[in-house]
Amino acid sequence: MGKLYIVPINISESPLERVLPDFNKQTVSALRFFVVEKIKTARQFLRKMDREFPIDDSVFYELDKHNDYSFQMEILDELKAGNDVGLMSESGYPAIADPGSQIVSMCQYSGIEVVPLVGPSSILMALSASGMNGNGFTFNGYLPKKDPERSKELKNVVTTIVKTSFAQIFIETPYRNETIFEDFLKHGHADLKLCVAYDVTGPEEKIITKSIEDWRKGKFQFDKTPCVFVLGN
Amino acid sequence: MGKLYIVPINISESPLERVLPDFNKQTVSALRFFVVEKIKTARQFLRKMDREFPIDDSVFYELDKHNDYSFQMEILDELKAGNDVGLMSESGYPAIADPGSQIVSMCQYSGIEVVPLVGPSSILMALSASGMNGNGFTFNGYLPKKDPERSKELKNVVTTIVKTSFAQIFIETPYRNETIFEDFLKHGHADLKLCVAYDVTGPEEKIITKSIEDWRKGKFQFDKTPCVFVLGN
Repeated sequence: MGKLYIVPINISESPLERVLPDFNKQTVSALRFFVVEKIKTARQFLRKMDREFPIDDSVFYELDKHNDYSFQMEILDELKAGNDVGLMSESGYPAIADPGSQIVSMCQYSGIEVVPLVGPSSILMALSASGMNGNGFTFNGYLPKKDPERSKELKNVVTTIVKTSFAQIFIETPYRNETIFEDFLKHGHADLKLCVAYDVTGPEEKIITKSIEDWRKGKFQFDKTPCVFVLGN
Repeated sequence: MGKLYIVPINISESPLERVLPDFNKQTVSALRFFVVEKIKTARQFLRKMDREFPIDDSVFYELDKHNDYSFQMEILDELKAGNDVGLMSESGYPAIADPGSQIVSMCQYSGIEVVPLVGPSSILMALSASGMNGNGFTFNGYLPKKDPERSKELKNVVTTIVKTSFAQIFIETPYRNETIFEDFLKHGHADLKLCVAYDVTGPEEKIITKSIEDWRKGKFQFDKTPCVFVLGN
């Protein structure tokens, strides 16, 4: 039986030696079967990691296009034939706020060994650098896009923070960062804290925590750079 | 002004090149000021990372012993004097299920730049390899030790999973792993899934997800090895 390796890749434009251990290169260089979010990104990553990587001798299964039962069985067949398989998403950690968990779940169900490699997670790095509660926290993913669901969810989150002190983590599509930021300022109590983690591990990285009251006094230039938001007390 | 670096260290007995990028070694080798959970562990890590590390020329502030206002001000003075400071815990990621967040919070409040390095987080790696919901999850830390609080909390968690589908992550003191495992089997519905992530990144790593029903049919040998537990549907 092969193993399923969970292969994190770089976030942003960070050089690989900034964010990936040497062991990942050794491990991934030996793989010839991959389940990927997008083939183009996966190929670019493999070439960046190892200029000699035999991409044309490798097999790529693309999650974006197919994710049905027969697709999963094809991957399972590779593993059962003894081939190790690497799982990669477009950025950062697969299966965390990214596709891939169905494949992992299928492997777990079928008794395939799953081995996670170390790599960058903007969610975890944002939380650790925010100074907020690392003993209890919730990752909420994306807020609902429209009202009344969005405002309701924001109110629930603020209530939960007051009740539990758990930090609440969110991500957003980059072009909507300004909007979610303004919503936090609108719905958060003045003394709650908000951390904006901008371009984590990248050349423009800024991870800044301020009270809602202090954020209301200024502006933050978001451009269209990926951000993680942490709200807490 | 100096910067505060969040310095993850190895978990378990894993070699450093398994879990830390080269960039960490370059960055940490240049530091001479550290805030650490335990000085002994910090020294061992620095020597393992770099046999030539000038430990005797370095200053260590120990979190376990002092964490009051004047201790925080001493660290802030180092940073204000232009010295970069590294924050380390005993294992894995500082400030996540580990001490350190108060120091980070103080730095954020004082406008000190906080830079998280990449490293192993057993919580994140367990979740990604569990195959459970990576789009929404809660890290709950430790369960209350005694009933009725413990049973009540377990019932709440099961209700939350059914309602939200968020994966629920827990850790436990190693000698109590058997107890928490039995409690999950007792309180979980038969079709919920439980992942046991044992010795993550270590030589005995096993990350196994099964339904509660299937776990009830067998045993798991815990010894006294650190584990992460993920419960979900």
